[in-house]
Amino acid sequence: MSEIAGRLSIQVGAWCLQAENGGRGILLGGASGVRPAKVVILGAGMSGAAACQVATGMGAYVSILDVNPTKLRYVHDILGGHMTTLMSNRANVEEEVVDADLVIGSVLIPGAQAPKLISRSMVKRMKSGAAFVDISIDQGGCAETSRPTNHHAPIYIEEDVVHYCVTNMPAIVPNTSTYALTNSTLTYGLQLANRGFPQALARDKALAKGLNTYNGKITHEGVANAFNLPWTPVEEVIRS
Amino acid sequence: MSEIAGRLSIQVGAWCLQAENGGRGILLGGASGVRPAKVVILGAGMSGAAACQVATGMGAYVSILDVNPTKLRYVHDILGGHMTTLMSNRANVEEEVVDADLVIGSVLIPGAQAPKLISRSMVKRMKSGAAFVDISIDQGGCAETSRPTNHHAPIYIEEDVVHYCVTNMPAIVPNTSTYALTNSTLTYGLQLANRGFPQALARDKALAKGLNTYNGKITHEGVANAFNLPWTPVEEVIRS
Amino acid sequence: MSEIAGRLSIQVGAWCLQAENGGRGILLGGASGVRPAKVVILGAGMSGAAACQVATGMGAYVSILDVNPTKLRYVHDILGGHMTTLMSNRANVEEEVVDADLVIGSVLIPGAQAPKLISRSMVKRMKSGAAFVDISIDQGGCAETSRPTNHHAPIYIEEDVVHYCVTNMPAIVPNTSTYALTNSTLTYGLQLANRGFPQALARDKALAKGLNTYNGKITHEGVANAFNLPWTPVEEVIRS
Amino acid sequence: MSEIAGRLSIQVGAWCLQAENGGRGILLGGASGVRPAKVVILGAGMSGAAACQVATGMGAYVSILDVNPTKLRYVHDILGGHMTTLMSNRANVEEEVVDADLVIGSVLIPGAQAPKLISRSMVKRMKSGAAFVDISIDQGGCAETSRPTNHHAPIYIEEDVVHYCVTNMPAIVPNTSTYALTNSTLTYGLQLANRGFPQALARDKALAKGLNTYNGKITHEGVANAFNLPWTPVEEVIRS
Amino acid sequence: MSEIAGRLSIQVGAWCLQAENGGRGILLGGASGVRPAKVVILGAGMSGAAACQVATGMGAYVSILDVNPTKLRYVHDILGGHMTTLMSNRANVEEEVVDADLVIGSVLIPGAQAPKLISRSMVKRMKSGAAFVDISIDQGGCAETSRPTNHHAPIYIEEDVVHYCVTNMPAIVPNTSTYALTNSTLTYGLQLANRGFPQALARDKALAKGLNTYNGKITHEGVANAFNLPWTPVEEVIRS
Amino acid sequence: MSEIAGRLSIQVGAWCLQAENGGRGILLGGASGVRPAKVVILGAGMSGAAACQVATGMGAYVSILDVNPTKLRYVHDILGGHMTTLMSNRANVEEEVVDADLVIGSVLIPGAQAPKLISRSMVKRMKSGAAFVDISIDQGGCAETSRPTNHHAPIYIEEDVVHYCVTNMPAIVPNTSTYALTNSTLTYGLQLANRGFPQALARDKALAKGLNTYNGKITHEGVANAFNLPWTPVEEVIRS
Repeated sequence: MSEIAGRLSIQVGAWCLQAENGGRGILLGGASGVRPAKVVILGAGMSGAAACQVATGMGAYVSILDVNPTKLRYVHDILGGHMTTLMSNRANVEEEVVDADLVIGSVLIPGAQAPKLISRSMVKRMKSGAAFVDISIDQGGCAETSRPTNHHAPIYIEEDVVHYCVTNMPAIVPNTSTYALTNSTLTYGLQLANRGFPQALARDKALAKGLNTYNGKITHEGVANAFNLPWTPVEEVIRS
Repeated sequence: MSEIAGRLSIQVGAWCLQAENGGRGILLGGASGVRPAKVVILGAGMSGAAACQVATGMGAYVSILDVNPTKLRYVHDILGGHMTTLMSNRANVEEEVVDADLVIGSVLIPGAQAPKLISRSMVKRMKSGAAFVDISIDQGGCAETSRPTNHHAPIYIEEDVVHYCVTNMPAIVPNTSTYALTNSTLTYGLQLANRGFPQALARDKALAKGLNTYNGKITHEGVANAFNLPWTPVEEVIRS
Repeated sequence: MSEIAGRLSIQVGAWCLQAENGGRGILLGGASGVRPAKVVILGAGMSGAAACQVATGMGAYVSILDVNPTKLRYVHDILGGHMTTLMSNRANVEEEVVDADLVIGSVLIPGAQAPKLISRSMVKRMKSGAAFVDISIDQGGCAETSRPTNHHAPIYIEEDVVHYCVTNMPAIVPNTSTYALTNSTLTYGLQLANRGFPQALARDKALAKGLNTYNGKITHEGVANAFNLPWTPVEEVIRS
Repeated sequence: MSEIAGRLSIQVGAWCLQAENGGRGILLGGASGVRPAKVVILGAGMSGAAACQVATGMGAYVSILDVNPTKLRYVHDILGGHMTTLMSNRANVEEEVVDADLVIGSVLIPGAQAPKLISRSMVKRMKSGAAFVDISIDQGGCAETSRPTNHHAPIYIEEDVVHYCVTNMPAIVPNTSTYALTNSTLTYGLQLANRGFPQALARDKALAKGLNTYNGKITHEGVANAFNLPWTPVEEVIRS
Repeated sequence: MSEIAGRLSIQVGAWCLQAENGGRGILLGGASGVRPAKVVILGAGMSGAAACQVATGMGAYVSILDVNPTKLRYVHDILGGHMTTLMSNRANVEEEVVDADLVIGSVLIPGAQAPKLISRSMVKRMKSGAAFVDISIDQGGCAETSRPTNHHAPIYIEEDVVHYCVTNMPAIVPNTSTYALTNSTLTYGLQLANRGFPQALARDKALAKGLNTYNGKITHEGVANAFNLPWTPVEEVIRS
Repeated sequence: MSEIAGRLSIQVGAWCLQAENGGRGILLGGASGVRPAKVVILGAGMSGAAACQVATGMGAYVSILDVNPTKLRYVHDILGGHMTTLMSNRANVEEEVVDADLVIGSVLIPGAQAPKLISRSMVKRMKSGAAFVDISIDQGGCAETSRPTNHHAPIYIEEDVVHYCVTNMPAIVPNTSTYALTNSTLTYGLQLANRGFPQALARDKALAKGLNTYNGKITHEGVANAFNLPWTPVEEVIRS
């Protein structure tokens, strides 16, 4: 899903930049003799790397930032070095964001709130009509100006910047997303169908991790903590 | 402008394929383990070639058709052969269009009506939710189902296919388009400013071709014919 | 050796498709205006990835299937996304194989029988004159219609499909294969030469694993099991 | 057809290099840690350029020679400089041919005998088991050791070099070749069908050039000269 | 020679940027997480295009300017769009030059003085330690601050910018240059040797154009004009 | 720093090959119709891989050697196979080095003396005017003929080969190197500033490893051994 969100982000970002949406009216790849758009991607994980592939493929001038040099080097290697990789720190983030036509927020930390890398004051200094797509909105968003939107009203303008903060972005390409989801879940479904419940969970730890409640007991530690209720390990439940 | 329209066509085509616009909900580049969209481009001129570059850059599976093998070979050469080139004839057009997720109509014949390569019956047999972007709409469109739209209501659905037939497409990226336009017109402007009118036209035939009327006389043959009025050659007018 | 077999598979597959061998008479990369061949690769391990590089390099339209999304993503990344990656499941295998001009079977599971991914009924529905190269033939083959062949009579036709199932494929390029083999074995040879036997084995566990019998005792567990004879661990033998 | 022959030449050349055909047993693209084959292409016309694309795509080390620097530069440009371009002169041809694993003769001069660029003495000094594919065999071949072969016995060995000199090479991929041929001839066929003979020839000079004899008169100047018979211009014949 | 100068310009420019030469101490391709240098190339002719290939190949961020959109498009096409193409006008030249780490002057107009595109005031506003390589120095140079240097003292610093203005740059790679030169001149040499003088000139107009004086007469119109002496056409001289 | 040294090595190697430095006068990428230089890279670690990217990007013909096939395969994959990978053994090293125009020594073994892969006799048999850049000079160099140089006199000629053995190469591009260094050290600096000393070391083991002496005690085992003095583990010191 991260990969799909990453690829989508450039596509919707390009759309945000169109004039009728309040954008700068700039084409990602420019034209012969006309400067392309500058795309800045925060985060070089699966999402950011996918966004980077699409943006360079469309001819934009891309810079990608991350705190992990190994991730930056991999993106650099597979794309033939045709983008700028930058260490993510306050100075670089600020310099790049303020200069961008399109910013992609793909700072996803599994199971945690996204860090607020982009302050309102940075957004204020962005170009008028620039666009910002926040993939990390499902985890709270990575800009102070981010707030969740939906497919019916996907964008809003704040500080003269077009914000696209649709939660569950992959839902706008359900065909592709369903196949991607099924690719990962089909094996689990087949195990449940073949072995029955709870035997299937007893044999596959990854599957067992997905159980939230069973027989009135909370079997997922995170859920138990969130609601401040007692937690029963999955193993105890499925053995009995 | 052709180049800009070509690049834009893929971007808006990708947007048409999103579910909320009535599209199939398929991502152009697919995902790891999920099939990309099939993009079919009719015409390998400047417009079609530009569309082909963007579509392959986004990871789609692209086929491009033209009657001119030299144009097909050039597109093949610069893109490393990573697309299918096909001779444009009725059989190939039909086979490809019916199988496509996104069709780009970039059949532009200078100063002529675009040929109606896509019949209504072909559109009927396209996949439900497929998209069609008609760049040649300014010349009448290349499908029987094409009719002009504008930036406020850019799309309509006919035969279950999302049609994007905005006239003057480059206007949605005015920033890029203005630079592109200025690139070609600036030299003319400077000549007019430096030499004055009509001296500038006397020295530059290309500039003189742009004069439509002068001193109550129609100096552009095409315009004169269209309105069935007498035509006065530019040379006569600017000499006097 | 997997890498060599993978690269070779496309070369011999292209040859199988030539008309004089019973193939469809289709050129892998097509031509300007003529559709390229569709190559379907089952398995994205070292063998399948190598086959994918060669096939895309020759201009074919390639799809590659695997159950491991990480392997698919790597192939996608290094080849710039210029192929289709698909999750390997019954539906996808069937759809792709039936539509292919050339199928490469590169499903190699170390030390195990290759799974019969391609049923006879699938082969029956393949195009007449399509070709199938089974790299996994050394492990039993991955199609119901596979049976071992050799360099003198490398191909046979069954269900109208040209089968190439030569065991030990790398032997047809002995020059390249010998260097590849020597690359991996030279260090072992030097150790044996420098330290003598069995001292060399005592110092290098990887080398010791290669010993099958010594002093009348079977020191390789697999061999012992296969012949139902007693097994003596290497360590015991080389210490004495 | 030149393009098809060019692409095919690498495929059959790779096959010639296989050990069972008398070749050196070397894989075009080598392997990780093992040197690739050196492919030398004489002539950078449509045929040679196509061969160059396929050979670099398969991972070979390629050098291509021509007397025309513009053609060399174009091949260099579209392939990203990943090959060696060399001026074709006696010294370079000799140095390269003698060092090659596979030589492609693609020196095609329209309507003329191919020049004998490769002398027997050069062939003698080539590596044992090297291969030579002569695309120009239909025009007499470009090596002193070339003599026409056919699809039943495509190769022969002379001076320890495997020679592949099949005339009409595209016939081994009739599927691809037929489409390519039809692409160029279909429009002529349609004109004949729609306008009838000889009216169609009167309106299309390119078509008229194809007429050899009519009403007992020889209308093709070349044919007339070859048989030393009187020539009647097409225009006279089709007017009457 | 233009091509060689173009390729060399990036290599010597990279050297100029090294700290010990007075440069900014910046690596053309940057590093993982560190910004690459910005290279600005004035002119997209053979020289500029060659410079652009090398600079993008080394991982720099490149923009290339020309007044000819067709040349810009070709560079864009063969390099996959991985650079910025810009119309050459005063505004763009100024904006780019001032922002550059390395500027390449490759504005070569055959037989004419190079235009002074870069004023001293622009050079003053360039970054301290930036570098400028003037390929057009043989035609007077394209900057107000350019003055010819030689291989012994190739650089000088003016307005805090490292200037490299070596005349006859290809002489620093005589091995490559000699082959390139011989490639073009060998055929003329062979004609002179085979046919003798002046017969060879009578048969080859291109060769005849190279004759400057003969029998006390000036046969080259340009030379005659430059010295204000009478001119005798080559044809008259070699006939007699 | 390895990455920077690797990229620099090609740039300075290209400069060494210029005639005025005693080099062969050959351009790395050759020219249309003129052979490129052959670059041989010993070691495919981070340094060697970076050198390989730059050298292929400049159009040289590159071969890279390593004992680790996985590293060779990665370089092959990300560069699209456009170079030769070779197992590093005595035969291959000798064959390649003797045939090279430019040799890069990037055999870096962390914390150990570089192996002397290149003997004086090999250097003797290299082409006159070839160049050798020894990145491993900080660890003693990988050639018998290597001896440290500095930025004021970076090169010397021995056995007719230009040697570039500057220690601490990244210092010639201090701008890029400082950013790269700061990228890795900034987080440590911030910890020291925020938590104070020695608390910061107590919380971050990686930081603690950097402490050499404290309160008169040697806390770095390596340093203690080198000077044959007693060693006090960091943990003891920072706890007290």
